[in-house]
Amino acid sequence: MIPQLNRQHDTHIQHTIEMKTKPQGALGKLETLAHQLVTILSQGMERSQLESERPDIVRPQMLIFAGDHGIAGEGVSIAPSEVTAQMVANFATGGAAINVLCAQLGWQLSVIDCGILTPPAPELNVVSQRLGNITRPLHLEPALSEAQLDQGLALGQEAVKPALASGTNLFALGEMGIGNTTAAAAIFSALSGLTSAETVGRGTGVSNEVVEKKQQLIEQALRLHREALHDPREVLRRLGGFEICQMVGAMLEIARAQKIVLVDGFIATAAAMLAYRIAPACKDYMVFAHCSGEQGHQAMLNWLNVEPLLNLNMRLGEGTGAALALPLCQSALAFYYQMASFEAAAVTQVVEPS
Amino acid sequence: MIPQLNRQHDTHIQHTIEMKTKPQGALGKLETLAHQLVTILSQGMERSQLESERPDIVRPQMLIFAGDHGIAGEGVSIAPSEVTAQMVANFATGGAAINVLCAQLGWQLSVIDCGILTPPAPELNVVSQRLGNITRPLHLEPALSEAQLDQGLALGQEAVKPALASGTNLFALGEMGIGNTTAAAAIFSALSGLTSAETVGRGTGVSNEVVEKKQQLIEQALRLHREALHDPREVLRRLGGFEICQMVGAMLEIARAQKIVLVDGFIATAAAMLAYRIAPACKDYMVFAHCSGEQGHQAMLNWLNVEPLLNLNMRLGEGTGAALALPLCQSALAFYYQMASFEAAAVTQVVEPS
Repeated sequence: MIPQLNRQHDTHIQHTIEMKTKPQGALGKLETLAHQLVTILSQGMERSQLESERPDIVRPQMLIFAGDHGIAGEGVSIAPSEVTAQMVANFATGGAAINVLCAQLGWQLSVIDCGILTPPAPELNVVSQRLGNITRPLHLEPALSEAQLDQGLALGQEAVKPALASGTNLFALGEMGIGNTTAAAAIFSALSGLTSAETVGRGTGVSNEVVEKKQQLIEQALRLHREALHDPREVLRRLGGFEICQMVGAMLEIARAQKIVLVDGFIATAAAMLAYRIAPACKDYMVFAHCSGEQGHQAMLNWLNVEPLLNLNMRLGEGTGAALALPLCQSALAFYYQMASFEAAAVTQVVEPS
Repeated sequence: MIPQLNRQHDTHIQHTIEMKTKPQGALGKLETLAHQLVTILSQGMERSQLESERPDIVRPQMLIFAGDHGIAGEGVSIAPSEVTAQMVANFATGGAAINVLCAQLGWQLSVIDCGILTPPAPELNVVSQRLGNITRPLHLEPALSEAQLDQGLALGQEAVKPALASGTNLFALGEMGIGNTTAAAAIFSALSGLTSAETVGRGTGVSNEVVEKKQQLIEQALRLHREALHDPREVLRRLGGFEICQMVGAMLEIARAQKIVLVDGFIATAAAMLAYRIAPACKDYMVFAHCSGEQGHQAMLNWLNVEPLLNLNMRLGEGTGAALALPLCQSALAFYYQMASFEAAAVTQVVEPS
């Protein structure tokens, strides 16, 4: 059960923003971001407590979920499935883009094996939450069994609990899984009704022929599973992946705990769409970090009716887009808590024309 | 004399980026940003020195230039000119948005009085580089005298020298000046040939009537000065401001020293256009931090044929957009220097289809 966001401090928060020494609205998206973050961080607080404690971001936690996809055997990716395990090892040894960004920007980083072809070497610091070696090909049968779906959602919840226990109040979820843009596009089509021509892009860089192949496989999958696609849990089970399933579970748990989640790119947003369809209230806890270069991501954001913070034409996954949005969250809270008001700074306030 | 950027390491830098454990181009704008930053930071270095020293950002410096504008007497702004001095005092005492962002993000901050109606109180930490109390109204006569133009360009150069001497290799220039969006729009029209209807926006929030007034004043100014507008120095002198003039001088000096400058919003970009027209090579040293919410800023960026990093619908000035881009510059260099290569991480590299 996801609690509705309590908006009792809305007027106070908006007034605080408007009394800062700047023209109204002049900090653009940073203002709406500050409003959302302060609203979430002050859940359960009286106004006096909000003003005295100034709740800020604590121990931001990046979780990378990795899983392999049966559909990859159909040649929908530029890379073979073995690259998933190679990249998981790269995450565990600190060499990937997300490692560098987390170290620079102050994220805690954990890597979770949700089910990849080759389990990581035991000496590597990877959390094992395996649902199998690889999903079944979604165009021929449900990608996950019913037991895998239930277990995956529960394991996703578990994945956020250590950080919650240590005080984390802002998460980001990254992913790695060769073939997972195909799963994400299929999920998007199933939830939105858009054709695969509208939802399928080049992933991390495939040719026109492969794009067509992806589209055909997705159309085949949508036909195969069409009777079940009114149910978001069935969309997840039939078209998803081990990592996508656990990301949905994690997003639901983060919302249940009333913490913030930065949503990354195409795959993470597919998970966010599923979490939203399962429990609409969880969207209130989501900050959409960026619009990726993957065709279809902007359409996903439109479907969700949200605006992303960044648009850097990135299409890497791993949580890299979400990682880059952390300084903007910190800046939003910094201006909210630390900027002077017109009164305090003795600056003439001019009311804007309507 | 601005030195051309030496691109001797271009191939090496691009190869280094392409060998990182990610699909080619998957970090989007962060890749082109890394290429530009490393190119500038490695000027005068042999390749071996670049590889061993890994030149990074040192002591990033924000300079805020403040000036008052005679045109403000015509009612083109929501705020009276006295707000310029009030905000300078706010900068000096740490209460403005730019103070908060600089403190959070690691910028050194200096405030420069280029000529405002009321000089700041002597106990405030403001650098005095005054060219007068206020410019002349640009629709009636040249805003600056010839002596003010020369002195302003020289003082702008001086403003960056203390930071250069202490090792700063990345600057951002912010500004404050009631009325300066009118000056910037006039400069943009003069350089681009666009009408005031295309270059004038709402500034920090004026009504439709005031927008029309701004447009009329700018058309009047363009007619008055039309014989001289082929010369960018004359555009600056006749339509600019004390702070805009010193920003142009500062940008030219930063480029002369082959350091990086993050260009902020509408007014800073007008200064960048002038610096570029005076010395085209200086554009190579510019990173365009954001697209502001001010109508016309995107058109300026198009005129310069550059892409901004951020688009947060901000329209505050002060250097706030440029300040927010620093973490992206740091992230770009972090991935360039610290990410593993395919070979080092034993990840299968797949060449993209063309």
